[in-house]
Amino acid sequence: MTEEHNRQWKLTARPSGLPKRTDFSLETTVVPLPAEGQILVRNHYISLDPAMRGWMNDTRSYVPPIPLGDVMRAIAVGEVVESLHADWRAGDHAVGLFGVQSFAAVDAAGAQKVFPQMAPLPRFLSVLGMPGMTAYFGLLDIGRPKEGETVVVSAASGAVGALVGQIAKIKGCRAVGIAGGPEKCAYVRDTLGFDACVDYKNEDVGKALSAACPRGIDVYFDNVGGEILDHALARINRGARIPICGAISQYNATTAIEGPKNYLSLLVNRARMEGFIVFDFASRYGEALQDMAGWLGAGTLKSKEDIVAGLESFPETLLKLFSGENFGKLILKVD
Amino acid sequence: MTEEHNRQWKLTARPSGLPKRTDFSLETTVVPLPAEGQILVRNHYISLDPAMRGWMNDTRSYVPPIPLGDVMRAIAVGEVVESLHADWRAGDHAVGLFGVQSFAAVDAAGAQKVFPQMAPLPRFLSVLGMPGMTAYFGLLDIGRPKEGETVVVSAASGAVGALVGQIAKIKGCRAVGIAGGPEKCAYVRDTLGFDACVDYKNEDVGKALSAACPRGIDVYFDNVGGEILDHALARINRGARIPICGAISQYNATTAIEGPKNYLSLLVNRARMEGFIVFDFASRYGEALQDMAGWLGAGTLKSKEDIVAGLESFPETLLKLFSGENFGKLILKVD
Repeated sequence: MTEEHNRQWKLTARPSGLPKRTDFSLETTVVPLPAEGQILVRNHYISLDPAMRGWMNDTRSYVPPIPLGDVMRAIAVGEVVESLHADWRAGDHAVGLFGVQSFAAVDAAGAQKVFPQMAPLPRFLSVLGMPGMTAYFGLLDIGRPKEGETVVVSAASGAVGALVGQIAKIKGCRAVGIAGGPEKCAYVRDTLGFDACVDYKNEDVGKALSAACPRGIDVYFDNVGGEILDHALARINRGARIPICGAISQYNATTAIEGPKNYLSLLVNRARMEGFIVFDFASRYGEALQDMAGWLGAGTLKSKEDIVAGLESFPETLLKLFSGENFGKLILKVD
Repeated sequence: MTEEHNRQWKLTARPSGLPKRTDFSLETTVVPLPAEGQILVRNHYISLDPAMRGWMNDTRSYVPPIPLGDVMRAIAVGEVVESLHADWRAGDHAVGLFGVQSFAAVDAAGAQKVFPQMAPLPRFLSVLGMPGMTAYFGLLDIGRPKEGETVVVSAASGAVGALVGQIAKIKGCRAVGIAGGPEKCAYVRDTLGFDACVDYKNEDVGKALSAACPRGIDVYFDNVGGEILDHALARINRGARIPICGAISQYNATTAIEGPKNYLSLLVNRARMEGFIVFDFASRYGEALQDMAGWLGAGTLKSKEDIVAGLESFPETLLKLFSGENFGKLILKVD
């Protein structure tokens, strides 16, 4: 241990618009020693998520902003190398908010055990991790799809969207995705088994969505906001539910964000738009994991990870989320 | 009967922006004869409601648009002068979609009996009519206020808003109104018993709303849309409910309407924005009427009608709704 160093990406400036390399600094420090009740984790994989952009802003939200100078907040999965807590020992594997760094000393209470014999480690950052829980509870608890209904999801080839559509299919719904480019749309339709996918980069979204949803939209699971949310609102059925999971089109806006111009469709259609935060469902993760692992095992649920190697590429790799360049759950591999 | 005539306001053009007198024509025709199963009603009072503006547009909504050349759709209350239906007889009083005209021959199924000994006739267009039902079900079923919570309502001196705040008080909530001008605000506070009222014409709405809601907003009952909806969204608590009843600030917009820029507050706060249409609760009007009549009798619920005499003033009187000029439920008295 003594010969190793910790490499840490710290947030050094509040980004305006897209985050830049100069908003962060990569520092080399000593590997921390765990305190009593803590574990020391060597991160293997770091999850890169759209929500991280919000955490960089100095605004009131569901979690406090990352203080300037602190290690960039991120979920990661790794191996315990030292434990000062009775429930953990070296060799265990853990997931938690371990940050964009190679080692983290954290309170054991903030870590969950994961079992590599169950699934490859990156899966605990995707289908068996936060994106999986987000898709599961956002769709089933907030969206409440009924058999035979039409479920539309944006960012359909992304970490959450891909799962939303597949769970919708498992529940007997028509699943329609919205994704960027023919390659992603083919994947969504042919590999993931959605009934249709609208290519927002090459199609008239309104027309294509109407064609893909001949019986209207009952659930629109929104990851993107902006114009696509308006196109969906214009096509909802009576009593529709719109879980608001994110608004990636707006996260880097430097001007006032765009509100949904068609929100009065909620009134006309007695419909509901509802926000949620996955952490609120923490006490029920077990129930979701059981279902998800079962569906994975049965082959009805597929998961795709987009793994980029090299901690030093963090700022540029993160940007793939906002350019639509990533394909599947974006994960940084720590060498 | 044969010496009388029917005077009818017909919609002759689709208004752009605020409706103008030239969008309508006042015609004098013969008093219609009821067909088998119909009743002939002499309208005494005609309800003027913001929703009427939407009915004039040629767009898909919860009811079909009024065809050009047809009598302007409106709820009215009056006396039955002739009946060809076994359940009705001359002298009965009825409320229904009788239109902006002096006489209406309508199917008995489309009329409800009202009893003038229970309350003066105009009350059946306000607290015991559609605005009353809208306030009752919109607040209690969609807003679901809990004792001790803070309920904010816009257009608080209006037909619906005044009732929303009073029902909130009856249910043990803090009631905060938003209204235009010191006179309306004094009425909302002092006569209706709201805890506070924000004067949107003379105060900084954001600051005043923060001051009036020291524990944040749990229910925001929205009648107006626009900037006021954004101010409310910025101040909601976790798990807040926002019943969308209307958006009077947007009904006459000739450009794209403004979407709520702060809608992502729904996500951060796990909150819900939900539209509703009062007609969906028709099977439960009885339950609401019982409560409302009880509260009226006990003096805990007050109702104010703004009655303007003269059928011929219809186009100008309707505009009072959109200028904020009316004070209480706007009603046209048929001379």
